[in-house]
Amino acid sequence: MKIPQVFCIEVEHSPGNLASVLAEVGKAGLTVEGLEAISRTEDRTLWELTLDMEVGQHDALTRALASLPIVNVLGISDRVFDRHEGGKIHTQPKAPISSVRMLRDVYTPGVARVCLKIQEEPEAAARYTNIARSVAIVTNGTAILGLGNIGAVAGMPVMEGKAALFHQLADLSGIPILIEDLDADRIVETTAAIAPTFGAIQLEDIRAPECFEIERKLQERLSIPVLHDDQHGTAVVTLAALLNGTARAGRDLSSLVVGQIGLGAAGIGIGSLLSGMGVKELLGSDLNEDARTRFEELGGKTGTLEELMARADVIIATTGVPGLIKPEMVRKGQMIFALSNPDPEICPHLARELGAAFAADGRNINNVLGFPGLFRGALEAGARRFTTEMLLAAARTIAECADGEALVPNPLERAVHDRVSEAVKEAALASDARGQG
Amino acid sequence: MKIPQVFCIEVEHSPGNLASVLAEVGKAGLTVEGLEAISRTEDRTLWELTLDMEVGQHDALTRALASLPIVNVLGISDRVFDRHEGGKIHTQPKAPISSVRMLRDVYTPGVARVCLKIQEEPEAAARYTNIARSVAIVTNGTAILGLGNIGAVAGMPVMEGKAALFHQLADLSGIPILIEDLDADRIVETTAAIAPTFGAIQLEDIRAPECFEIERKLQERLSIPVLHDDQHGTAVVTLAALLNGTARAGRDLSSLVVGQIGLGAAGIGIGSLLSGMGVKELLGSDLNEDARTRFEELGGKTGTLEELMARADVIIATTGVPGLIKPEMVRKGQMIFALSNPDPEICPHLARELGAAFAADGRNINNVLGFPGLFRGALEAGARRFTTEMLLAAARTIAECADGEALVPNPLERAVHDRVSEAVKEAALASDARGQG
Repeated sequence: MKIPQVFCIEVEHSPGNLASVLAEVGKAGLTVEGLEAISRTEDRTLWELTLDMEVGQHDALTRALASLPIVNVLGISDRVFDRHEGGKIHTQPKAPISSVRMLRDVYTPGVARVCLKIQEEPEAAARYTNIARSVAIVTNGTAILGLGNIGAVAGMPVMEGKAALFHQLADLSGIPILIEDLDADRIVETTAAIAPTFGAIQLEDIRAPECFEIERKLQERLSIPVLHDDQHGTAVVTLAALLNGTARAGRDLSSLVVGQIGLGAAGIGIGSLLSGMGVKELLGSDLNEDARTRFEELGGKTGTLEELMARADVIIATTGVPGLIKPEMVRKGQMIFALSNPDPEICPHLARELGAAFAADGRNINNVLGFPGLFRGALEAGARRFTTEMLLAAARTIAECADGEALVPNPLERAVHDRVSEAVKEAALASDARGQG
Repeated sequence: MKIPQVFCIEVEHSPGNLASVLAEVGKAGLTVEGLEAISRTEDRTLWELTLDMEVGQHDALTRALASLPIVNVLGISDRVFDRHEGGKIHTQPKAPISSVRMLRDVYTPGVARVCLKIQEEPEAAARYTNIARSVAIVTNGTAILGLGNIGAVAGMPVMEGKAALFHQLADLSGIPILIEDLDADRIVETTAAIAPTFGAIQLEDIRAPECFEIERKLQERLSIPVLHDDQHGTAVVTLAALLNGTARAGRDLSSLVVGQIGLGAAGIGIGSLLSGMGVKELLGSDLNEDARTRFEELGGKTGTLEELMARADVIIATTGVPGLIKPEMVRKGQMIFALSNPDPEICPHLARELGAAFAADGRNINNVLGFPGLFRGALEAGARRFTTEMLLAAARTIAECADGEALVPNPLERAVHDRVSEAVKEAALASDARGQG
């Protein structure tokens, strides 16, 4: 895996000096990602030079640069780790407590009146606390990205990333909750016990099959929306890309055979949404028998990887196994989504070279396009659950927001999330999402 | 209870017009807390006039103001509720995710490397996540301020206030956790299950006697600091005030009889810290027999309210009963802390008029002076528990920070919390707070 490494170097001022630095970079076969002047004195400039490189590759370059008399290598840092230093999120007051008067309003004694108001009228909590704008991000760390069961604490950087995105894209507070436990019932008990703190629950990176049971039991017990993002968030964004991809290929989903490789949480979520959309045929493959049975219960057929690659028009892979799809399996005109993160089942570039009509990986088809608007829409509607209508509304809206040839929109475009949220809210109000379960 | 009400009024420009408004305020016997010009046109100004008044008292004033031809009353709002609108805290990214490059560093695919690093080296979580800078603020809502068992959700405004103060005063993330449950064991189970998410646990507004059991069991089970703030936070700040008060009265704590009215969580926390400080005699009174027994186990004697008021040099009341200390009970030279919030057992002003050497209430002797620095110091030291040495270090440092005649420093002075944190950290490093329990 390539890593963005930041070289901190001092270069003397003289025509051609920077060029000789970049010549060394070129000789090493490295790509420049960025070059920024940090400070400048009379005779030299301090540069931050960011290069994408394999781990360990920096030693040779450091030696080459250090051998240039005009260069002084001050240090090398890793941008990803730099950006994680101290953690990525924090809890803050919405307004600073800058005076004793304010302290007495937001804390004792003033706060007592707000507490009594909520005691009398429980619905006032939605107005006078942050509860209705908070989403618990609950994980037990058993299926962190494509990395598997690495534990909840090791998964925290993912949860903090989600929390940061909740704020950035939907003005919601995402609050990671780490439960180091493999037992589905204990996870349900714990999550239900702290549920009054939050407006909704996002289950995250919990492995199959426990994830299905945990989601179902929590949905039954709680009157706030509960969603396992790896199932439904991923399904929503995949469906959005599929809607655009097939439309651009002049094909109709209902005339296509969709093959799903990997029937874990994401696979089942996608299959469940697709089966409601009326594809011609839904084929699935997985080494695990229980997973295949679950897929068949959704109305899908199952077979081997090879059978599936030979027959399906659309391939959706969610296996966590990098490189699983071999070049010789790809057929001309296939549409391929190789969604495993951080490394896909086949590189989209290679798949296109082999004749795929289009190909995408999890970098683009990423559930960050879905979950912020899904949760904000549900919370704004006062929904008690997510309905299929809400998921479909999100998928259609994401698809509509994509520009030009792109399958999905830019995930950092705030307007996309506002539109998704609005569509989900409307679908919630129109469906039975607010009623008793 | 007086409430800050904000009158939004338009007043025509003409000499003496504002004076006639304030004349009406004076006639109504109200105190002006603030007057601010919000906007100004050619012929009139929009003012926000903040008055401290009893609930319901605003009707008469509104009529009086409306009868002035030069005034237009646009509305009245309640500043405390205004400041709670939408909640008081939110979770935010430490740096905005402003580019796709940044998204790929802090979320997939970059984040995977940080996860793997933590899996290999669990201590790296302290550096690359916010865990070691987070404190869970856990309540079941059974003893919210002096309001009693109003439920955890109704207590949320207090928890959000604490969380806001954690950030403001100590750069920590306070994360409210609401558990609507009366059972001590279930609260312990739930809190222990989510404990990996946090660097420390603050138990908050949980009633006696469950609070003692919950704190003890969590301290036994977890290897991170656990503190019931109503016991020990209150005790630390009370001791600080007591150190200054007695020093200024030229008295030595070891020569004094201390009487504690109310032996609930705060009472027991204070008694336990004082019994370690060597006061001459510790007297307690409480209607509850179990509470008295617990106090006697700390080495205190017990008696009636009247006996205690008649004998003690220092009175510390933590009963939650406003006005419990009658004027005729106060003796000349007594030092009185009437700590119940929002309304004290006796108004400090009245107590001083009756001859008390000094008197203070919970507005000043507030645990906001303690908990931010206590937790930050413990977290920075990597402490696994709070020791008595850490609590005493905090109390002495708070006492040293008070200026002039004040018993305690201004709680919003950031430097105070920095000093408390430093003292607690030193005490933790010097004591056994980091070792196995």
